[in-house]
Amino acid sequence: MGRSVVSRFDVVCIGNALVDVLSHEDDAFVARTAVERGTMGLVDEARSNEIYAEMSPAIEASGGSAGNTAAGIASFGGRAAYIGRVADDTFGKLFTHDLRSLGVHFESRAAIGGLPTGRCLVIITPDAQRTMCTYLGTGAELDTSYIDEAVVEAAAVTYLEGYVWDPPPAKGAVRHAAAVAHRADNRVALTLSDPFCVDRHREEFLELVEHDVDILFANEHEITSLYEVDTFDDALQRVRGHCEIAALTRGKHGSVIVHGDEVHVIDAHPARVIDTTGAGDLYAAGFLFGFTHGRDLAMCGRLASLAAAEVISHVAARPAVSLAEWAAAGD
Amino acid sequence: MGRSVVSRFDVVCIGNALVDVLSHEDDAFVARTAVERGTMGLVDEARSNEIYAEMSPAIEASGGSAGNTAAGIASFGGRAAYIGRVADDTFGKLFTHDLRSLGVHFESRAAIGGLPTGRCLVIITPDAQRTMCTYLGTGAELDTSYIDEAVVEAAAVTYLEGYVWDPPPAKGAVRHAAAVAHRADNRVALTLSDPFCVDRHREEFLELVEHDVDILFANEHEITSLYEVDTFDDALQRVRGHCEIAALTRGKHGSVIVHGDEVHVIDAHPARVIDTTGAGDLYAAGFLFGFTHGRDLAMCGRLASLAAAEVISHVAARPAVSLAEWAAAGD
Repeated sequence: MGRSVVSRFDVVCIGNALVDVLSHEDDAFVARTAVERGTMGLVDEARSNEIYAEMSPAIEASGGSAGNTAAGIASFGGRAAYIGRVADDTFGKLFTHDLRSLGVHFESRAAIGGLPTGRCLVIITPDAQRTMCTYLGTGAELDTSYIDEAVVEAAAVTYLEGYVWDPPPAKGAVRHAAAVAHRADNRVALTLSDPFCVDRHREEFLELVEHDVDILFANEHEITSLYEVDTFDDALQRVRGHCEIAALTRGKHGSVIVHGDEVHVIDAHPARVIDTTGAGDLYAAGFLFGFTHGRDLAMCGRLASLAAAEVISHVAARPAVSLAEWAAAGD
Repeated sequence: MGRSVVSRFDVVCIGNALVDVLSHEDDAFVARTAVERGTMGLVDEARSNEIYAEMSPAIEASGGSAGNTAAGIASFGGRAAYIGRVADDTFGKLFTHDLRSLGVHFESRAAIGGLPTGRCLVIITPDAQRTMCTYLGTGAELDTSYIDEAVVEAAAVTYLEGYVWDPPPAKGAVRHAAAVAHRADNRVALTLSDPFCVDRHREEFLELVEHDVDILFANEHEITSLYEVDTFDDALQRVRGHCEIAALTRGKHGSVIVHGDEVHVIDAHPARVIDTTGAGDLYAAGFLFGFTHGRDLAMCGRLASLAAAEVISHVAARPAVSLAEWAAAGD
């Protein structure tokens, strides 16, 4: 925990670089387009275009789970880096601008030619839930050559998206990053990302959590899917001892942080929920900002809940206001 | 007023097609970048990129004054068409999607190669005021060949942005559209757009208002600039009789509608102001929807105020919710 003083970065986040295309749709849209409500589904470019053609007027904003987390950490005033692959196109330029303008270190070279920058169609239903259809584009081509070892070595925490287990070269790249981080005596954090993503990679995630992950982020659906159990408490009992710290979120019911015998039950920060896109990503941002700044786990959880509450109170997945004023909490 | 029954379109809106790039900035940003607070300034591509590089994380959303008005009319359930020039690029595709998904008729061909789709950097300051820096891109190349005469003939009202007087070929195109509209016995509406725009084209605007414009939209700064008078009331007395209807807006002080001896003073609809981008455009949308659906002028003003209130209650310049539920008001 004390490494942040000597580290150049608090956290390096590695993930699928995406621009979000967000629109409000009714429940009939979800039924008609046969998307799986509340989850992230992978689609190819043709299907992405097909769904987009059906969508209402949208707004575009940089996204990507780990990108949102990096933006959140920077918004608190933390030192964040990002590794992910964009193309040299309009969406790639927007994505790059939006991270760098927050001071996030993002030097991954843009892919020239080939696949475009990935995009995530985000369908916001009247219940404020988001359903995502992702075309990964060139993001899926992230490979080991993109892992800047100096950055990973210089970061107290290396944070990985579960989503990057979907494209095979990216999975190899993040496994390499985790090995570099541990060799440098840094921490490795993982978010399980999505219950369907857990379904696709359960064996690998179980083995990762057992051997490679120091800090695990998961929501209730993801952690019960991981252990194939029925209740949150069953999953909680299973995860204890399998990784150093587990931060388990339950939406409006708050979150539970487990670290050996230490257990903290954290309330959700009150919010008028407009769009839940980015809630988990910003929870991780608040937690990791606190963690790399020497806060105790309960305060890490409170910063996490606060960042999540901010991002669900408006459309789009990154903070609309600076989180810096909260950064001193618990200092 | 009764033409909507036999017209295929209520309103055709003609303007500079733009995608907005919106970010929150502090007052120091405005000073540092030397933009003129609260106005629209034209910039070239290099200057646009320079200001963008300084901006905070942004969101992107379709904009353009007349585009916002067309979207607003469609949101009420009106039949709107749009004429403007985009390129065959990412922003051009977003702009086209966002209008067509509302049912707006937009068949202007995309320019292949050459200049990109125009963009408007929108700087939102803590007072919710917006300052705009526009790179017109291919929008400036709108010419008479883009004016679909059948669409103009089929629209009860042809609505023109003052901004299109800036690029010389576009000015010729909208003058042609106005002539076609009048030949078909339709109405011509104009918004003065911006006080600096009025400064640039005062003589032409005075002559237009006198001879060609049936319905004039202007805010207090624009109408006092047009007549070079000090007070709103002086401008009001001058505009009476120069065009059939003038709808003059005063921000939170509401608006005044003048039609010969008929004068209506309309209150602003209450709103929590987040971002004033699009307020004037949506005022025009509400007014023109009412006007082309046979509402009396006072009700046109109330629909206008309501649409403006909706758009200033969130970031971005087009309605975030359907305005259709208000469409029956005063029916």
